Amino acid sequence: MNVPQTSFPRVVIIGGGFAGLAAARGLENEELQVVLLDKHNYHTFQPLLYQVATGGLEPDSIAFPLRKRFNDVDNFFFRLAEVKKINDKENQVETSIGDISYDYLIVATGSTTNFFGNTNIQKFAMEMKSIPQSLNIRSLILENFEEALLTSDLRERQKLMNFVIVGGGPTGVELAGALAEMKKEILPKDYPDLDIRLMKINLVQSSDCLLKGMSAKASEKAEDFLIKLGVDVWKNLRVLDYNGDFVKTNGEDNFNAATVIWAAGVKGEAIQGLETKCLVERASRYKVDLYNRIEGKENIYAIGDVACMNSKEYPYGHPMMAQPAIQQGELLAKNIIKLLRGKEIKPFIYNDKGSMATIGRNKAVVDLPKWKFQGVFAWFVWMFVHLFSLIGFRNKAVVFLNWVYNYIRFDRETRLIIRPYKRKDKYSF
Amino acid sequence: MNVPQTSFPRVVIIGGGFAGLAAARGLENEELQVVLLDKHNYHTFQPLLYQVATGGLEPDSIAFPLRKRFNDVDNFFFRLAEVKKINDKENQVETSIGDISYDYLIVATGSTTNFFGNTNIQKFAMEMKSIPQSLNIRSLILENFEEALLTSDLRERQKLMNFVIVGGGPTGVELAGALAEMKKEILPKDYPDLDIRLMKINLVQSSDCLLKGMSAKASEKAEDFLIKLGVDVWKNLRVLDYNGDFVKTNGEDNFNAATVIWAAGVKGEAIQGLETKCLVERASRYKVDLYNRIEGKENIYAIGDVACMNSKEYPYGHPMMAQPAIQQGELLAKNIIKLLRGKEIKPFIYNDKGSMATIGRNKAVVDLPKWKFQGVFAWFVWMFVHLFSLIGFRNKAVVFLNWVYNYIRFDRETRLIIRPYKRKDKYSF
Repeated sequence: MNVPQTSFPRVVIIGGGFAGLAAARGLENEELQVVLLDKHNYHTFQPLLYQVATGGLEPDSIAFPLRKRFNDVDNFFFRLAEVKKINDKENQVETSIGDISYDYLIVATGSTTNFFGNTNIQKFAMEMKSIPQSLNIRSLILENFEEALLTSDLRERQKLMNFVIVGGGPTGVELAGALAEMKKEILPKDYPDLDIRLMKINLVQSSDCLLKGMSAKASEKAEDFLIKLGVDVWKNLRVLDYNGDFVKTNGEDNFNAATVIWAAGVKGEAIQGLETKCLVERASRYKVDLYNRIEGKENIYAIGDVACMNSKEYPYGHPMMAQPAIQQGELLAKNIIKLLRGKEIKPFIYNDKGSMATIGRNKAVVDLPKWKFQGVFAWFVWMFVHLFSLIGFRNKAVVFLNWVYNYIRFDRETRLIIRPYKRKDKYSF
Repeated sequence: MNVPQTSFPRVVIIGGGFAGLAAARGLENEELQVVLLDKHNYHTFQPLLYQVATGGLEPDSIAFPLRKRFNDVDNFFFRLAEVKKINDKENQVETSIGDISYDYLIVATGSTTNFFGNTNIQKFAMEMKSIPQSLNIRSLILENFEEALLTSDLRERQKLMNFVIVGGGPTGVELAGALAEMKKEILPKDYPDLDIRLMKINLVQSSDCLLKGMSAKASEKAEDFLIKLGVDVWKNLRVLDYNGDFVKTNGEDNFNAATVIWAAGVKGEAIQGLETKCLVERASRYKVDLYNRIEGKENIYAIGDVACMNSKEYPYGHPMMAQPAIQQGELLAKNIIKLLRGKEIKPFIYNDKGSMATIGRNKAVVDLPKWKFQGVFAWFVWMFVHLFSLIGFRNKAVVFLNWVYNYIRFDRETRLIIRPYKRKDKYSF
């Protein structure tokens, strides 16, 4: 039996991201059995993935073992499993380790890269939603530089040193900034025999501004910072196709690039099984009511990125970010406990604490509800908030140490090709 | 052209381990072109691999980017390449990035796991000579525990929780100790629904003592420490075969075990091309004279694990450890410079600074030339020496931070399955 049966009602939570973790924490030591399922045995602090991809942080310092988080919680059970289907008629989920029944089901599967159906791009472009994917990007950047050294064909070398980041949201902006700093501070020292001017970092955004969800000032300033760092910012340009070498756009500017990182869209990681009417199809997010209950379902909830709650302020659902996820997880846990005790439950109201993005050393933009600012102070605020949000003292300490070191030394030392990406077959290295 | 030609004589060094790195350092800023080839872009601090395998350290903190080491050295060239063959007639090496010619060749390829021709063991057992291999062990240990939870077949569960480490040298001893500490401090908390008493750690040694190269006192005490930590130490037992489930030995005791870690032997990582008479065949090490010159060759040297220098004190060559490798690398660099200047070169004399092994918290054994001691102080000495030997300030700081944290909290937080080993096909996770 994959999970032992207790006499308490069972809450199954799918996904140990921000939302699922918050819900599980809220249900600790209640008269409930909490079963957390995840395909990883760790929580990923996604906002810092781009620093792993660019050699600034160890992957292990932004991951936290899920079992440890609940070491002293008696009613908690973790299982490493991938959920394949929800059978709501039988109150069961089908997983890679067998069927698991539930009394309450919380879907907190988060989001995945949205290629909008373009299978070429999906095949040849890199994604950055998980730690292994970020490590693949780290390997690929370095492998391309090693290869660029070897060719005497200038076009080929330019292609290997040409990076296209698609999507001008926080992920694209932060990644472009980090790559630009690698170009400025690290790669010329590591590759003195390459002309670093051949390296291009292109940030392609389909609309006319970066960081769409943020203020106009933040957007302008971010663009300004990026341009100063030497990033080529392309606005109103859309990437249509990519074959591993050539990036076709809807404009006159196309790119020869060995590396394309796709940060142009995410969609909910919906699971098979529920009727399509439960889904906002294009976004692949579950329609939920103000209590995060999936429409038409009694005991199935969705929280975080995979949930789409319509409200006046957010007609297309809340932004797919950590804050709504955490807040929904926390409230849902409280509501489930209230339900069990026969008390009245509360609707979700999003408390927008603001948003921020970092572009590089001393360069960040912060939008708080009542105050918007950019530059050095914003950068310190960004660092403080991220450090504070990381789970675990050890992770905080290691990240802090790396940041201090990188800041003082203008360095990023984890530029290691631990598992080659191009030579994938040679993992035994 | 893979390496630009300069007017200086070219020294090609194969391998960026302890020996190769020491040689390259010694040749810095001389009137020579130094070309370092390695299949990794980083130096691995092998003595701490066992801590990566058991979740105590981040892999990135025991790796150091080779290019960074020589950032400000003008006569230095690094190439990420695998050397396939030495063509000594043409003074060239064949590599994965094409042929590279040399004036002097230094083979510093180190050693690899020696399965003594047993292909079954090679196929099913784990090795621990590189960072990816250590990460595979880390994943496998955790994956086996996750699986053990799911089975109701007691025999199967015992098999998944049964670990066999073959080889009672420093690697085997240190790994067994670290696993025993995981059993004591971490796994029972992470897997409260498993009976941790089912977990067995077997250390199998073919001779009648552990840590053969060390003093009798160190050997006894190490065994004592291991037994106190709950390790089953099997002496005078030889593993004959392994099929992934069943470990066949030459004695009455066989094992059902899902994990076998093979630390029973290493051999030199010799390269194709030179005549077999250059090799000590069984050990696969190059026969070298007192100047580390490969026998019968004018301008080809071997240093470190792959070199076998006969001397009165060391009739079978020096121990395959960091110290002889570093000393040989340093001396060879000096000798090459002397050769170029027409000065007299010096023969190698090994300065044995002693050896040590750690078994666990407050438990280590140290043999210095004039003083042998065990226990808490030995443990501090062990830590100090290893911390001091790590390359790079950042690595030292991160390792120190982890050790302090692990010591105070009785923890090892990098118990992460970043790349599953059993589900290798799912690397995209």
